Amino acid sequence: MNSALDILRGCAVAIVGAGLVGRGWAVVFARAGFPVRLYDANPEVLQAAPALILTQLEGLERYQLLDEPSSVVASRITPHHSLAGVVDGAAYVQESILERVELKRELLERLEALDDGNRIIGSSTSGIPASQFSSGLTIAPRVIIVHPVNPPSLVPLVELVPSPSTSPQTLAFAKNLMQAVGQTAITVNKEVEGFVLNRLQAVLLREAWALVEDGIASPEDVDKTVRDGLGWRWSFMGPFETIDLNAVGGVSDYARRLGPLYQRIAASRTHDAPWGGTLVEEVEAHMRGQLPLDQLAQRCQWRDLQLMAFAKHRKENS
Amino acid sequence: MNSALDILRGCAVAIVGAGLVGRGWAVVFARAGFPVRLYDANPEVLQAAPALILTQLEGLERYQLLDEPSSVVASRITPHHSLAGVVDGAAYVQESILERVELKRELLERLEALDDGNRIIGSSTSGIPASQFSSGLTIAPRVIIVHPVNPPSLVPLVELVPSPSTSPQTLAFAKNLMQAVGQTAITVNKEVEGFVLNRLQAVLLREAWALVEDGIASPEDVDKTVRDGLGWRWSFMGPFETIDLNAVGGVSDYARRLGPLYQRIAASRTHDAPWGGTLVEEVEAHMRGQLPLDQLAQRCQWRDLQLMAFAKHRKENS
Repeated sequence: MNSALDILRGCAVAIVGAGLVGRGWAVVFARAGFPVRLYDANPEVLQAAPALILTQLEGLERYQLLDEPSSVVASRITPHHSLAGVVDGAAYVQESILERVELKRELLERLEALDDGNRIIGSSTSGIPASQFSSGLTIAPRVIIVHPVNPPSLVPLVELVPSPSTSPQTLAFAKNLMQAVGQTAITVNKEVEGFVLNRLQAVLLREAWALVEDGIASPEDVDKTVRDGLGWRWSFMGPFETIDLNAVGGVSDYARRLGPLYQRIAASRTHDAPWGGTLVEEVEAHMRGQLPLDQLAQRCQWRDLQLMAFAKHRKENS
Repeated sequence: MNSALDILRGCAVAIVGAGLVGRGWAVVFARAGFPVRLYDANPEVLQAAPALILTQLEGLERYQLLDEPSSVVASRITPHHSLAGVVDGAAYVQESILERVELKRELLERLEALDDGNRIIGSSTSGIPASQFSSGLTIAPRVIIVHPVNPPSLVPLVELVPSPSTSPQTLAFAKNLMQAVGQTAITVNKEVEGFVLNRLQAVLLREAWALVEDGIASPEDVDKTVRDGLGWRWSFMGPFETIDLNAVGGVSDYARRLGPLYQRIAASRTHDAPWGGTLVEEVEAHMRGQLPLDQLAQRCQWRDLQLMAFAKHRKENS
């Protein structure tokens, strides 16, 4: 715990934006022992946050995913009613506001005015390159994307995406910070659209749509293929390690033997069809046949419980 | 158990080919209560099979994945020293020989000569369309691909791929049989290369290679993104269900909001690069830095234990 605090030189983490993502971050930092300061421009969102955070912590506690009582973790989080107040004494700011570039730019300009010359700012954006809201600011070298998966308290992956202005020290700080809070940080070296996680998801989804469109498989069978097949290995190994272990001579042996097949498969999907029209309607109808829209929220609770159970399983098996 | 046996009208399952895949099938069928007859053209392979199968069963037993003692399950499996002997009294044959079309064709011709007019033949092939080895045979309507994931005793997904000659009755039989043994069967409606699972894997791997080639992420970070991020949801939900639960209005709402982003990502990968050259060498070198080649087999054991632990987790959480 001390080494984690050392990273912040005894200072706090400030979270700006107390919506779903910001609350998730509050849990991650508080769970790791950091003092957390929480702010939202909307007082109602800020007021509602502590109870919602406590509920999240109690869920983690039930699944034995906390090392301390939930009340102790919750007590590290303090709401603040102004931006100046929340960043005062904070060595790191996790920006988690709405995904609109002009709002992020405006926030960074205000943070620049409140700058202490050291503070590092991580942005939770899933899709806006940091250069679009940090360029030209004096704090730009200390701004980096720190993009979590939702909810970060359960899924460890975090994508670090430096802008061309981000300093190596800022990247190193973010890596250390993520390690200290138990997240798995990867570095996305260029500001590509979708970063890494969503690019990988995008190409799989694109093939999923095409398989349905071509009448090769139903949406349900595509889902089963991942849920009861592909996803098993990918729950504890990445795609490279998976194929590395599937050939006696490792990944290059695998590439030699199966590369031509995979290339033919990739080559057979050359058009980039839009996500729309009757295909989306067809899949929507199929999904609603499985799950009516008014049960979606309930199913999301099921998903979150499954994620908790999986997190517990991974904790016990790694 | 009786209903499972009813499917076979009291007959046995014959497995032709006692290699890794055939042995995995023997475990699946015997575990479900079926009498299993096992044959391999190579007497040494056949002789070695029972001990290897018992080891596999004992592993499942340790992880509480068997409902009966491993010795009871093993006792249902009997080796046979001729093709005529193994199929005699078998209502279903699971072909699990080498992946060479001329060998499969030859086997099917011999099975045709031994045909009883009812027997159904499932092929374990991962890549050869059934029409290539069954066309023109009188048994062709009773031949279907029943492609498992390795090991089938742990990973439930099975791809059923009828050829144009396969009868609807054969497809229905295979679906019922897979349900009876506790596997998850999907239907691949056309004989496409890679079926469904490997097509989905192919496109993700293709993007993985490209991310490394473009210097966007290291192979290790690509692996982490799946292992500690994407793979968590995909371990219990498919890709469609994942996005269906990620938008308040379901999958069509998601497509409307994020479709354009995903389409741009897909459109940015239009070339179908071969799997080769310095890129493969680079990834190979990277993987060997993590895991020397002489430790690959040991890591495969780790993988199998992880799969067992995951199977136990899934059994307890579904």
